Amino acid sequence: MKNILLIGAGRSTISLIEYLLENLESEDWSLVVGDQNLEFATSKIGNNPRAKAIKFDVTDDSQRVTEIQKADIVISMLPAHMHISVARDCVSFKKNMVTASYVSKEMRSLENDAIKNGVTIINEIGVDPGIDHLSAMNVIDKIRDNGGKIEEFETFTGGLIAPESDDNPWNYKFTWNPRNVVLAGQGGAVKFIQSGTYKYIPYCKLFRRTEIIDVEGYGKFEGYANRDSLMYRSVYKLEDVKTMYRGTLRKPGFSRAWNVFVQLGATDDSYTIPNSDELTFRDFINLFLAYNPTDSVELKLKHYLNMHQDDVELFEKLEWLDIFKPIQIPLRNATPAQILQYILERKWSLNKEDKDMIVMWHKFIYTMNGKRKELHSSMVVRGEDSLRTAMAKTVGYPVAIAAKMILKNKINTPGVHIPITKEIYKPVLEELKQYGIDFSERQIV
Amino acid sequence: MKNILLIGAGRSTISLIEYLLENLESEDWSLVVGDQNLEFATSKIGNNPRAKAIKFDVTDDSQRVTEIQKADIVISMLPAHMHISVARDCVSFKKNMVTASYVSKEMRSLENDAIKNGVTIINEIGVDPGIDHLSAMNVIDKIRDNGGKIEEFETFTGGLIAPESDDNPWNYKFTWNPRNVVLAGQGGAVKFIQSGTYKYIPYCKLFRRTEIIDVEGYGKFEGYANRDSLMYRSVYKLEDVKTMYRGTLRKPGFSRAWNVFVQLGATDDSYTIPNSDELTFRDFINLFLAYNPTDSVELKLKHYLNMHQDDVELFEKLEWLDIFKPIQIPLRNATPAQILQYILERKWSLNKEDKDMIVMWHKFIYTMNGKRKELHSSMVVRGEDSLRTAMAKTVGYPVAIAAKMILKNKINTPGVHIPITKEIYKPVLEELKQYGIDFSERQIV
Repeated sequence: MKNILLIGAGRSTISLIEYLLENLESEDWSLVVGDQNLEFATSKIGNNPRAKAIKFDVTDDSQRVTEIQKADIVISMLPAHMHISVARDCVSFKKNMVTASYVSKEMRSLENDAIKNGVTIINEIGVDPGIDHLSAMNVIDKIRDNGGKIEEFETFTGGLIAPESDDNPWNYKFTWNPRNVVLAGQGGAVKFIQSGTYKYIPYCKLFRRTEIIDVEGYGKFEGYANRDSLMYRSVYKLEDVKTMYRGTLRKPGFSRAWNVFVQLGATDDSYTIPNSDELTFRDFINLFLAYNPTDSVELKLKHYLNMHQDDVELFEKLEWLDIFKPIQIPLRNATPAQILQYILERKWSLNKEDKDMIVMWHKFIYTMNGKRKELHSSMVVRGEDSLRTAMAKTVGYPVAIAAKMILKNKINTPGVHIPITKEIYKPVLEELKQYGIDFSERQIV
Repeated sequence: MKNILLIGAGRSTISLIEYLLENLESEDWSLVVGDQNLEFATSKIGNNPRAKAIKFDVTDDSQRVTEIQKADIVISMLPAHMHISVARDCVSFKKNMVTASYVSKEMRSLENDAIKNGVTIINEIGVDPGIDHLSAMNVIDKIRDNGGKIEEFETFTGGLIAPESDDNPWNYKFTWNPRNVVLAGQGGAVKFIQSGTYKYIPYCKLFRRTEIIDVEGYGKFEGYANRDSLMYRSVYKLEDVKTMYRGTLRKPGFSRAWNVFVQLGATDDSYTIPNSDELTFRDFINLFLAYNPTDSVELKLKHYLNMHQDDVELFEKLEWLDIFKPIQIPLRNATPAQILQYILERKWSLNKEDKDMIVMWHKFIYTMNGKRKELHSSMVVRGEDSLRTAMAKTVGYPVAIAAKMILKNKINTPGVHIPITKEIYKPVLEELKQYGIDFSERQIV
């Protein structure tokens, strides 16, 4: 019997755990689900006799070592910065490991020891990063195998709300960590390459440099650039590609309205506002506007950000969030970003029946037999409700399948990996189809 | 005989050293001027028999300790972050010290030991910080002593070019560290309080939130806010003041044009551009603009930043800097801020005969006998040429005078100070008048 240790049983692990539970009997596995919150873990495993829930504290060295030693594979669904102590133990005790997070420097530095100890660690195998790697490499290798040369690559992913649950003027709800949405794009200039020219966008312009993407059957979306697209040239072995652009999708109009908060400075997380619990939402917005003894907050905002009287849709989005209302902020000495998150969570949280939607879209421009070709590849996945979300499915299934493949010794190359080799992406993409996670391709020219 | 050790003999120390040299004989002092660059030190002391130049390396513990032990007072004109090792030695060996820099946390932490050892350390006694403290506290105390209560305080300082040397469309040249000018306003939101309301401005809006200041006899200036004005409420003992605003002066039009570089992201110092030495100025600007196979850099820039065809003065400023020309950048793998600084230094450097000008302006609103009063206080100092600058005079003389007062035991309160007490500001302001550094007051109401 093989033993699986899953650490972290948060919202996004529901599909992952269901997949594992369904396979425990047939694959002769046992499963231990550990979380700081025992209830999270208990509620997710049901009464499966091969599964056990434990209260788990990753900072407790003795517990961590004990549990990892008992496992054949460790799946870490902790926040990204908490993987490393688990990874070090996995290398020491020769246990394989899977995470859905970006490879950190610390994780990368375990490469040599992992190879020496015959340990396989697969990272970035959720949705983004994850399915984007799998599906992009699938097309890139196919084009290369047919003698083509990739000239340009653009890829966009969005965690959005499904059309039937889309009932607000932003066409957006939080389907993922709200804090990450508020802080998106901060912490350094955005970098990419387009038609052979490096391009850099500062945070203050990021949400005004969007591109319109048409996904067949789903209409128009807008995309803004992710932080650093340049490093993916080497990851995908596209060193001399002329365009490399990775972006995030929203419904059109979102970014222009979000830019209002960026321009105000309301997404800043670097300082706290004294006694913010004595302020209202309206006071909060006024903190960022010039003093004027007579003008209203609304007028000052419109004037400051050069809005016109007929920018009705934009202003409606802002009003709908209640930002001009005298509603008390319940957070004391909070940062602007924390207060903004509070304001947004009142309105952007999923209702129980809401369905989310993940949209992924790739554009490949390549030359083959001297001809310029263009191929689009896209995936749309809908959630079932606010628990069985598209986010949980698209993050959880690739992780689960990768874990299975390691346990069945179908993936066994030691080292710290991301899923860009055929050995990994072929079977994972194939099995994902069973769960409605599938790409459709369109040859444009 | 008292011995003075002056560390750091850069451009801004010329007036300071001249003052000390003139007083060596009459006060029975000796002077050691130490600099990493021995020539800097040698050239400034002339052939005064009581002065000596040495090559000095502040990171050489043994040399630093030896020289400090021989001194009665140490004046540090090093960059701000290099004072602390000197200050620690001064406290250990019971030597007094003067700097023109902001008190750092590390400097502040020496307070108790300084008091215990009877050591006086005076910081922030240059021009800004320095003369601003002296002159503001002079007025604030006067108003208080007459039974008035300060309601609002605004203060602005600018290191500018004198009208007779003002020969470019920006009405600006570098009269101080160019790097600080390029990076001004970065590193966190600007904070102040106005009419009882906290106000916060993000970097991307800082140069669009200017105020117009009229300095009698010198015309109009524009001011943008300094980083953190709030902390000066406690420094000046104005805890319940309704407005506290500290700002920087430029000639009108500067900030709007500077904002072009801010919006582009050209002031970013957080990443490097690969092979920037293969780019021209024009390529550099194009890095920040969207790709377009046909539009010119000029057109894209105008469109991106919503410039109008008749924004002639703004566009003239940009063109005058040669930013649209195919001139090679000689810096390899440089940050945007470094490249921008290079471009600006070609055009904004002082000519030999150029005169700079320091403008300082305070506005006090206070109540006295139930009446609302308003008082303005301003100072304008001109340089003689590009060496004997107003900057060197206004930084150097207050430092020199403070050092003299410590040596003559007229300042002797131990601790880590800034010059906000009558004991310090009265005599320093009085003596500064001899050097043409003087304030004129205007009672508005």
